[in-house]
Amino acid sequence: MTIPDRLLMGPGPSNPYPEVVVAFTQPLLGHLDPEFLHILDETCARLRTVFGTTNALTLPISGTGSAGMEACFVNLVEPGDTVIVGVNGVFGERMCEVARRAGAEVLRVDAAWGEAIDPQRLLDAHAAAPHARLLAVVHAETSTGVENHIEPLRALQATDTLLLVDTVTSLAGIPLDVDGWGIDAVYSGTQKCLGVPPGLSPVSFSARAVDRIRGRSQPAQSWYLDLGLLADYVGTARRYHHTAPISMLYALHAGLGVVLEEGLDAAHARHRHVGGLLQDALPEMGFRPFALDRPLPQLTSVWLPEGVDDAKVRAELRVRFGIEVGGGLGELAGKGWRIGLMGHSARERSVTTLLGALATLV
Amino acid sequence: MTIPDRLLMGPGPSNPYPEVVVAFTQPLLGHLDPEFLHILDETCARLRTVFGTTNALTLPISGTGSAGMEACFVNLVEPGDTVIVGVNGVFGERMCEVARRAGAEVLRVDAAWGEAIDPQRLLDAHAAAPHARLLAVVHAETSTGVENHIEPLRALQATDTLLLVDTVTSLAGIPLDVDGWGIDAVYSGTQKCLGVPPGLSPVSFSARAVDRIRGRSQPAQSWYLDLGLLADYVGTARRYHHTAPISMLYALHAGLGVVLEEGLDAAHARHRHVGGLLQDALPEMGFRPFALDRPLPQLTSVWLPEGVDDAKVRAELRVRFGIEVGGGLGELAGKGWRIGLMGHSARERSVTTLLGALATLV
Repeated sequence: MTIPDRLLMGPGPSNPYPEVVVAFTQPLLGHLDPEFLHILDETCARLRTVFGTTNALTLPISGTGSAGMEACFVNLVEPGDTVIVGVNGVFGERMCEVARRAGAEVLRVDAAWGEAIDPQRLLDAHAAAPHARLLAVVHAETSTGVENHIEPLRALQATDTLLLVDTVTSLAGIPLDVDGWGIDAVYSGTQKCLGVPPGLSPVSFSARAVDRIRGRSQPAQSWYLDLGLLADYVGTARRYHHTAPISMLYALHAGLGVVLEEGLDAAHARHRHVGGLLQDALPEMGFRPFALDRPLPQLTSVWLPEGVDDAKVRAELRVRFGIEVGGGLGELAGKGWRIGLMGHSARERSVTTLLGALATLV
Repeated sequence: MTIPDRLLMGPGPSNPYPEVVVAFTQPLLGHLDPEFLHILDETCARLRTVFGTTNALTLPISGTGSAGMEACFVNLVEPGDTVIVGVNGVFGERMCEVARRAGAEVLRVDAAWGEAIDPQRLLDAHAAAPHARLLAVVHAETSTGVENHIEPLRALQATDTLLLVDTVTSLAGIPLDVDGWGIDAVYSGTQKCLGVPPGLSPVSFSARAVDRIRGRSQPAQSWYLDLGLLADYVGTARRYHHTAPISMLYALHAGLGVVLEEGLDAAHARHRHVGGLLQDALPEMGFRPFALDRPLPQLTSVWLPEGVDDAKVRAELRVRFGIEVGGGLGELAGKGWRIGLMGHSARERSVTTLLGALATLV
């Protein structure tokens, strides 16, 4: 198996940190070995720091970000519950679908792709449906490169409605303060700003989210994602649930170590800096920004210059230069790109490498 | 992070093949990169060979073996369906629980732990409940070390009832013939006889299982495990569903490569040979077999000799000798062990190493 080297500048996965690749080569331990449980505990502690939370129930779900999304909905929603979902891209849409499959009545608050959702509109929707059990929104929309403003939703803390936030693309890339913003449930992914390959989904739940889960009238529809059972393994009971994905946990432990050694503020500043460099340079080459509102530094969405063939140029970038950028979704399909600068890929060198290659192609 | 070296002789994970560890260090590719899709296709082709099937819908689920179990039930069962489950250990019990959460009415066929389920009893249960939509049974019970006889259940092919088999601990360790035995749905794990760390669950579905999935009256309750959506990514449509766990897929691809290079017959013979060596030697040291009926070569369950302290001796094995064996479950808890010889751990050296250490301890 000979695999070509790639500079990964799509919407994820990003390139893993070198320390993460080394972690994969460590001796495999069993999922009940005290030495492994120590690494698991340390991983959960590190996750609390990057999430900005003291939540006891903080752990990596054994699946990708979408498994984390599903874990949140199937544990927090019971059939017939009303759920408000903010939708301004693919991942808001996905939340609606996953919520429906968990039996929820979904109330959508839509905004145009490329725009942020005004948090007041979400609060107004809640005022009109105060019986909603959950309000869910994406922090960083991977399909459009837009940040939604979460902090004002803290107002939900004064109500019985839980706040659920998708931080797959935001975690460790832009500031996030789970406790300070009153977030009750949060899920993320490893393959974006954490600089770890895809395969795990960090999640965290506030005390009142845990109460909601404990007070369910029936078990969660998923056994694999049942947080009560998962808590018995990750917590002090150490009761076997499923065989933890040991190697991926080594990788996540290492990636979190890199992020925390750099420092969260420094990591955010690095993502902001390199994203700014790219977003300043692209218009000079004829690319126009797609995200006009609260653009993410770690994920830049752009319209291609007039006359540029999407598939052809992306293939040349990949084959000739070993660079991956992401295609557009929705309106942007075939007409725009999503360019990631996340985790280990978030370096000035990535920007100059891409711009240099583009200068020969467009 | 300094991780001690372990000889993994528990019920899984087993030690990964060296080629598998190397695969983790290969450059990361994106989940839509043609080079990665080629590896994914080759992985699915290799899975068909080890399963003994030509099923088009053969793929690795992005979670551990229990996620594969859940994928089978939530896609094949609709609320109110009757499901017959053979139960002679933890994993048969788990199937009942997962089936119930998918809305099934479960009819159990129980056998004592440590004994195999007489396949005629399963067929009789089916004769009494021919409307059952699914009959599910574990091939190799990881909790007891017993093999259930699957081949006679081929008779279900003449009925409308699908046959679902758990092959987590059997795949590549003992003969399995998915097509020849008329198995309609099968799931496995990577961390047993495939010699790959935990994290993926290979699954495969017959044409009539695919028809059942396509004919559902409502979508599967899980979006993450929805086989229709997964087939659109793994198949020719290449439609993005979730971000595939790239590194784990490299590892599985490599592990399957090792198994197929050795040859399935040779791999089975190796597991049989080393399991026999261990099972011949243990009684001489005072261990008594727990599985009296169809014992698995790759997983040996034994009662401890009189007066041996389970926790103390297992800790000494682990700390002083770097050897992991598994504790007992159910009746065997605290009184017996489960000793695995699977994948790369299935070597004569493992047997002599363990026996040598035990000779100093018991």
